[in-house]
Amino acid sequence: MRDMGKTTQVPVVQGILSANDEIALQNQALLRQHRILTVNLMASPGAGKTSLILRSIEALRTRLRIGVVEGDIASSVDADRVAAGGTAVVQINTGGQCHLDAPMVRRALATLPLPELDVIIIENVGNLICPVDFHLGEDLNVMIASVPEGDDKPYKYPGIFTAVDAIVINKVDLLPYLRFDMQALRKLVLGMNPDVRVFAVSCESGAGIEEWTQWLEQQATTKRQA
Amino acid sequence: MRDMGKTTQVPVVQGILSANDEIALQNQALLRQHRILTVNLMASPGAGKTSLILRSIEALRTRLRIGVVEGDIASSVDADRVAAGGTAVVQINTGGQCHLDAPMVRRALATLPLPELDVIIIENVGNLICPVDFHLGEDLNVMIASVPEGDDKPYKYPGIFTAVDAIVINKVDLLPYLRFDMQALRKLVLGMNPDVRVFAVSCESGAGIEEWTQWLEQQATTKRQA
Repeated sequence: MRDMGKTTQVPVVQGILSANDEIALQNQALLRQHRILTVNLMASPGAGKTSLILRSIEALRTRLRIGVVEGDIASSVDADRVAAGGTAVVQINTGGQCHLDAPMVRRALATLPLPELDVIIIENVGNLICPVDFHLGEDLNVMIASVPEGDDKPYKYPGIFTAVDAIVINKVDLLPYLRFDMQALRKLVLGMNPDVRVFAVSCESGAGIEEWTQWLEQQATTKRQA
Repeated sequence: MRDMGKTTQVPVVQGILSANDEIALQNQALLRQHRILTVNLMASPGAGKTSLILRSIEALRTRLRIGVVEGDIASSVDADRVAAGGTAVVQINTGGQCHLDAPMVRRALATLPLPELDVIIIENVGNLICPVDFHLGEDLNVMIASVPEGDDKPYKYPGIFTAVDAIVINKVDLLPYLRFDMQALRKLVLGMNPDVRVFAVSCESGAGIEEWTQWLEQQATTKRQA
């Protein structure tokens, strides 16, 4: 029988991070050491994540060195497109998992030439739901909402629209052929997330890309000086 | 101490189903009893799930009584659109979960007038990944792949393209404005899933809807006679 008169000290651990968040912090520390701005890019399948990455690399080629982490359930078709332009890129295949996680990104970062990079864009798995809950070590969360998906998506996927720092509305070249109320969408997302930046672009025509890449460059400059 | 000489009979349970699959079988039995054809409709956000449901109801109005289960993370905007036409509909809000499951569908079925229905279309959460792993009690799995998403999606989301009985390629009215190789996509999906039916439709113009609804009606007739 235990002596109930003695007080037993039970160790209490507070503020426990998930294993994912622990490793995300390690990724963040590594990226901070290299002063690399890191963007977690999320969207539905086919919204234009790879196209936005290619447009950004092209527009910033002479000013920023961009590396890319491609996340997909399977295949390396996106990484192949990015690598074709000479960019440092690594493909993660999740093998069925519906989002990237920090351990996957850690393994990917180990293969990139970090001292030679200013920005890393991580293209998450095409999914508006699951990626939101997993920190990777990123500085910025950015989502693409494409015009053909419709202007009602914030109602249905509020989690991602409130979690991101910027929303890129892509495929504005299709606006003449679709019912899509850009003003209503802007009003809706700013109501849910007042500090979010909204960009309207076409990765097809190049419209609006300059405004987006200027913002991205500004964020990278701030990071370098931090 | 136990008598090791005696053989203890340990009960062995084999062929264990997941809790979800157990309830999916119960749903299936209930729907079979009512001879209702049940379709699990999956797609990316904004591919046109609700629009295809509305077109199908309209085309089959005089021949089939269709009920609808709407699945979304949040909101009832889709169910409101369906209910406006007088269709029996129930909205499931998953509260963050990235797919429907059999218990949710069981609760939804309890609210529908089953003796008055020939077909139930279940609109799953907009997601190409997670819904595939959860049986609901459906007869048919159908996915929509929309033209603006691009023709390379089977490479990236092979799970869903191989799991479905039919693929509806929606938004063919946008083909003149996009690079999309319909023949290449058909060849790719038939290579992965030789028995799949492929339909090309526009929920905007109505093109191709008749072929799709004829097939759906045929499936419902087979179910009624089973």
